[in-house]
Amino acid sequence: MYKLVELDSGVCAAEGFYADGVSAGLKAKGAKDMAFIYSDTLCNIASVFTTNKMAAAPIKHFKAKGDFQTNFVFINSKNANAMTGSSGVSDIEEILSTLPNTLVNPLMSSTGVIGVRLPKEKIINGTKLFDLSMKNPHSAAQAIMTTDSFSKEKAFRVELEDGSAFHIGAMAKGAGMINPAMATMLCFITTDADAPVNEMQKMLDEATVTTFNAASVDGDTSTNDTVMLFANGKSGAYHKEAFAEALHAIMLFLAREMVRDGEGATKLVTYNVTGAKNDVEAERVAKALSDSLLVKTALYGEDPNWGRIASTVGASGVEADEATLTIKFNDLCVYERGKLLFNAEMEKEAAAIMKLSEFTISCDLGIASGAFTAFGCDLGYEYVKINADYRT
Amino acid sequence: MYKLVELDSGVCAAEGFYADGVSAGLKAKGAKDMAFIYSDTLCNIASVFTTNKMAAAPIKHFKAKGDFQTNFVFINSKNANAMTGSSGVSDIEEILSTLPNTLVNPLMSSTGVIGVRLPKEKIINGTKLFDLSMKNPHSAAQAIMTTDSFSKEKAFRVELEDGSAFHIGAMAKGAGMINPAMATMLCFITTDADAPVNEMQKMLDEATVTTFNAASVDGDTSTNDTVMLFANGKSGAYHKEAFAEALHAIMLFLAREMVRDGEGATKLVTYNVTGAKNDVEAERVAKALSDSLLVKTALYGEDPNWGRIASTVGASGVEADEATLTIKFNDLCVYERGKLLFNAEMEKEAAAIMKLSEFTISCDLGIASGAFTAFGCDLGYEYVKINADYRT
Repeated sequence: MYKLVELDSGVCAAEGFYADGVSAGLKAKGAKDMAFIYSDTLCNIASVFTTNKMAAAPIKHFKAKGDFQTNFVFINSKNANAMTGSSGVSDIEEILSTLPNTLVNPLMSSTGVIGVRLPKEKIINGTKLFDLSMKNPHSAAQAIMTTDSFSKEKAFRVELEDGSAFHIGAMAKGAGMINPAMATMLCFITTDADAPVNEMQKMLDEATVTTFNAASVDGDTSTNDTVMLFANGKSGAYHKEAFAEALHAIMLFLAREMVRDGEGATKLVTYNVTGAKNDVEAERVAKALSDSLLVKTALYGEDPNWGRIASTVGASGVEADEATLTIKFNDLCVYERGKLLFNAEMEKEAAAIMKLSEFTISCDLGIASGAFTAFGCDLGYEYVKINADYRT
Repeated sequence: MYKLVELDSGVCAAEGFYADGVSAGLKAKGAKDMAFIYSDTLCNIASVFTTNKMAAAPIKHFKAKGDFQTNFVFINSKNANAMTGSSGVSDIEEILSTLPNTLVNPLMSSTGVIGVRLPKEKIINGTKLFDLSMKNPHSAAQAIMTTDSFSKEKAFRVELEDGSAFHIGAMAKGAGMINPAMATMLCFITTDADAPVNEMQKMLDEATVTTFNAASVDGDTSTNDTVMLFANGKSGAYHKEAFAEALHAIMLFLAREMVRDGEGATKLVTYNVTGAKNDVEAERVAKALSDSLLVKTALYGEDPNWGRIASTVGASGVEADEATLTIKFNDLCVYERGKLLFNAEMEKEAAAIMKLSEFTISCDLGIASGAFTAFGCDLGYEYVKINADYRT
């Protein structure tokens, strides 16, 4: 047995990790716009990147390096270094070459405007402000924000049965993948667990499917999406199931926080799809629901319009039948296997559920046992305002 | 050779067709809510229906009938007769059984709220108001409107080289597939061409791909989408290429009108995708662009944010590379095969194009020769208003 103890911390929860945020003048008014994470011993790395074919320069730079260990990553906001071609990659190399030699295989990550070269001089000057002895995880989490309205951090101490313990903590940014000029989701996870790197990569891949990849603000996939897990092994402790559980819990929390902070969002909705032909079809339905403009505007209007749910299930391309479909808002069943249950009284009950800031919509397809859970938000005026008025 | 002459008409342009709209009390304030189309001789039928697995009762009723000819179809707005199960189909049979025997294999089509049984008595009383001698195509086109802000009709007289001629005309409704309670696109086409039914079905299928299926307001597919083509052969004239061209022109016009009338839309944008690996991948990109919230809100904000275009191309899952991609707003090239062309001056030019009510965004993927053209609109406050406030 093991125990997960939540800590009020982020990327510095694990032993040997340091982090801070500084202002390099990329954002206006002296706001923090560059963050670093430093480990006093070398780290193994597990990572997941965007599937966007226009993957940004930092991702190309990372992927070109092959297997390696590192003790340093820094992140700038305000410029994504995307659609900048080979110049984008050589800009990174030039910037990284100015760092002290004590930083081994240093990495860079970016988020912000697409299609503009990095302001190299500002960024190089910014790196000179980094103090590697600082443990300010919250300051780092703030520096990587773009349209986020709050910073996102989570950490656990994992206590094992034999009295040993390890730590895992993370910071993330992303207020929707909806604004490609300010689009990206980034997540950096640090741990002092003594985790085998292959096992860690596999757990990261698996956890991504049901956390970040199950979360949608607008169904878009940015050029810069990045999840990186750094493990320095300093605790000497490790337990596979405990690590997997803590990793998943952190990623799920951060994924849900991102949706909650979706641009203009007022509600966090969980879509529980069951009874599909298989898990892949269940995922397709859950994502169709979380991405549907129909459904998202109904949520915003707090309108228990179950017909939009049914129509979206039917349009998602999976095996489905009105005679076997069941739809619930939380525990309230509004449509059951061909029976029209909805009436004025039920509409009142359903409308009350839709006024909650967080609730669940369940669809049982009644065909087989495929299941998937996705997270989405509503779409209101504020979303349009943020995205239509961004550059004007 | 042949000549297409545009007529100021709709579904009564072809010889022997009659149509009208009446008020059966389904809509408020005596607005027209039921339309019929009658032919004084029997018609062959070609049809295309929604791919939504929750296809509405009228579609199930039609598909269960097998091959047949008819001389009558009527349409009600305000109630979609969808998610109503076998009761929905028996309601149709009951209603149709009350019609005069002179109507052979009569058909019914519906659009409106999902998940509510048809008000049978009102509808049966409504059918008694039909006067089969009327030629009021515009009145019929108005009666099938839901959230449409204008009715949609088009007709041609097609003059053949041998002096013979036939007619083809249509009416459609649909202001976006965005409101499932008022969702559907319906299109009814009539012709007196003496067209072989199999050839006609094939031409209808082909034309649908590049017209209605290339048009998107919000990427949703309703439970009731229907295109029906009725041919009574009365002109005795026919010419395959001329018929195909006229049919395609009518469907393209109506598809573009639907997008132009998209709920809250202020712009009609044509997405020209070329240079893709194949036509299927080009279609995927074109539809990803026309459905992207990123792109749609940038259009509304009149923001020439080409990075959103590039990111959406990259996220669409097709073979693509920033080194071979080229993006144009009308004839203005803003990104060319890895070269960042954009500057302040170009931004002004691009912004001027985006203020137009109609323009083209072209993406050449520079890979092979796959091509597809899609039509989309912007997404603004009015869209949210229409969809969030619908039932409240």
